Amino acid sequence: MELHRFYSSLAIRNDRTRKIVLLLIDGLGGLSHENYGYKTELEYANHPTLDRLASRGATGMLTPVLPGVTPGSGPAHMALFGMDPISLNIGRGVLEALGIGIVPGSTDVLARGNFCTVDDNGVIIDRRAGRISTDICEERLSLLRDIRVPGCDIELHAVRDHRFVLRLKGSDLNGDIGNTDPGTVGRKPKAASALTRRAEATAGLVNAFVDQALNRLKGPFAANALVLRGFSMLPGIPGFDELYGLRSAALAIYPMYKGLARVVGMDILNCGNDFSDQLRTLKTHWDDYDYFFIHYKYTDSCGEDGEFLSKAHHIETLDSSIGPLISLEPAVLAVTGDHSTPAALKSHSWHPVPLLLVSPTCRRDGSTAFTESVCARGGLGTLESKYLMGLLLAHALRLEKFGA
Amino acid sequence: MELHRFYSSLAIRNDRTRKIVLLLIDGLGGLSHENYGYKTELEYANHPTLDRLASRGATGMLTPVLPGVTPGSGPAHMALFGMDPISLNIGRGVLEALGIGIVPGSTDVLARGNFCTVDDNGVIIDRRAGRISTDICEERLSLLRDIRVPGCDIELHAVRDHRFVLRLKGSDLNGDIGNTDPGTVGRKPKAASALTRRAEATAGLVNAFVDQALNRLKGPFAANALVLRGFSMLPGIPGFDELYGLRSAALAIYPMYKGLARVVGMDILNCGNDFSDQLRTLKTHWDDYDYFFIHYKYTDSCGEDGEFLSKAHHIETLDSSIGPLISLEPAVLAVTGDHSTPAALKSHSWHPVPLLLVSPTCRRDGSTAFTESVCARGGLGTLESKYLMGLLLAHALRLEKFGA
Repeated sequence: MELHRFYSSLAIRNDRTRKIVLLLIDGLGGLSHENYGYKTELEYANHPTLDRLASRGATGMLTPVLPGVTPGSGPAHMALFGMDPISLNIGRGVLEALGIGIVPGSTDVLARGNFCTVDDNGVIIDRRAGRISTDICEERLSLLRDIRVPGCDIELHAVRDHRFVLRLKGSDLNGDIGNTDPGTVGRKPKAASALTRRAEATAGLVNAFVDQALNRLKGPFAANALVLRGFSMLPGIPGFDELYGLRSAALAIYPMYKGLARVVGMDILNCGNDFSDQLRTLKTHWDDYDYFFIHYKYTDSCGEDGEFLSKAHHIETLDSSIGPLISLEPAVLAVTGDHSTPAALKSHSWHPVPLLLVSPTCRRDGSTAFTESVCARGGLGTLESKYLMGLLLAHALRLEKFGA
Repeated sequence: MELHRFYSSLAIRNDRTRKIVLLLIDGLGGLSHENYGYKTELEYANHPTLDRLASRGATGMLTPVLPGVTPGSGPAHMALFGMDPISLNIGRGVLEALGIGIVPGSTDVLARGNFCTVDDNGVIIDRRAGRISTDICEERLSLLRDIRVPGCDIELHAVRDHRFVLRLKGSDLNGDIGNTDPGTVGRKPKAASALTRRAEATAGLVNAFVDQALNRLKGPFAANALVLRGFSMLPGIPGFDELYGLRSAALAIYPMYKGLARVVGMDILNCGNDFSDQLRTLKTHWDDYDYFFIHYKYTDSCGEDGEFLSKAHHIETLDSSIGPLISLEPAVLAVTGDHSTPAALKSHSWHPVPLLLVSPTCRRDGSTAFTESVCARGGLGTLESKYLMGLLLAHALRLEKFGA
């Protein structure tokens, strides 16, 4: 049985009192940095409130996917929402759409598009079309917007630079389609090919679009062609309400995270531009929901930029602002990250992520701080992120006994 | 998806700079011994170099197969090579062959044979034929070597005492065959029976061989019959090169470990007779490979013999000889064992095995020594051995991000 269905089978519904809060600090986990006494960002930062929470709760470590595997935001969040991130991996096209605020319908097919530059023979000579500006990307897309293909509606959305999203809307589409992007210069874009029988008709629609598009883009200039990849549809995931009987809401500022929350059926609350705004919104809607997902972005961005001190600083900002959340006294508060983004690596990484769980029903483990080294020895042990949802439900007394 | 295929799908190939070294101390894990202050062999031994490595790295524990499961060398090594040791278990016949330096072809069927002694009615009265010497085993085998069975070629190899290996070579053989060994005295050897339809022809060949063999062995003396068990073929495992893009080499002295390394496509380097020789060979071939498996045997043998002090001594010898390996500055160095072999038990055991990982990309966890008690609290946590391969690849920056 799929993990989320197993937890679902045990879920106790209609409890409107015991609130669950998942405070997700994006890219939280760090790496010992030689310039900072081999401390991680979290070890270096001063965060007395989180430390106090740790002493009232239990800590542990989350492995986002499997040991050694560095996750993108998609699988990392899906796991924290209780889904197996390998079998329910969200395709690139869908993620790209979520990232710009589009939540695909369940029958849509999405693909990530790149403008590229080809020579007179149609051979790709620049896979990113010289990284044209987003304005030029918009301009090129406007040439393609009135292309009609019988059998589906087509939408095109600029992302950034040479990147865009292709959305096919129809009633009988299928996303099992291979990339038209050959993945290298020196080759022509490929035709879209159906990877399964059921996708043959959709592949035909894609090729009908691409043929017309290539005709319109032709010319002795950059961005005179396009390639598509990551054809995908929304995985059929039931919402939190259906699965767990949870009225759930997301407090996220960036489109990607709002989109990922929508995939599991959360309401997206309008929550301003910073963490204090997010917490004010939380308070306003406290009675309306049973589960709140709060997404704190800045730690990840600083990690990606290699900014150790900024990342530590954003942890401190969060720590000093978290009071209003604690005052609401959620039945279960989990503080963790979707993955590690160590400044030392300037990228997402595979390292486990610190987890802090505070609840009247948690077994206190004597943790005295919220750091990687404390969490690695914490009472919750090291577990895959996909099990967190079960822990949250359990500590909120929202899972019934399994078996007699 | 099988674990090794999942890691394989993320592998970054063609990196010729970041070397991975797996230093496997056979039977490393020990057990608190009442004669030695309830210390384990590793806790008792003096190993300042390994301790220094621990303080620069991270530690943890490996569970060879599953909690409580004592592994043989086959599954224990397969797991460390990234294979699920339960679904890809190597059969007894194949392992026995590997142990005497025979690497079976992919279409061979192997079985472990025992000479036994039967009474006038063909009923087994001694399953080990009085543990005849290897010389007598050779002599008995020589009676059987010119047996011909149309449909396959037959090889017979003495192992030790009453034990030998039967190898069937052919193009359409199948190893799903039940033991002819009834597993007890007081019964006759059984006919070989096909466990699946596809193995019926092969079972017929085996029985044709056995009938002739029993005829030739007949007589009022020991070793006048034989039984076979562990019929098996090589599991179809792709090599490290194909799977992970790793040029890999094994530095092992004993045939079994060379054989296990060959199963996953490693080159076997000629590396002398002791650890210093192995390290000299490592240095010579440093530029030729991306992954090195170094097998250190003596700790296991001492554990099997119940020699606590000798096992501790061999750990000390390794520790004092390891300098040349450290000087090579591998991108990732893992020091661990395939399983525990506590002198207190005189056998392999199920206890988790200490793991030490040193890499510029590892999260230092404050470990100050390399012992079971430190590793049990280490930052890497306790994980199944099959995940080590993913950690090694990740720390060498050889795995790409999963999902976007």
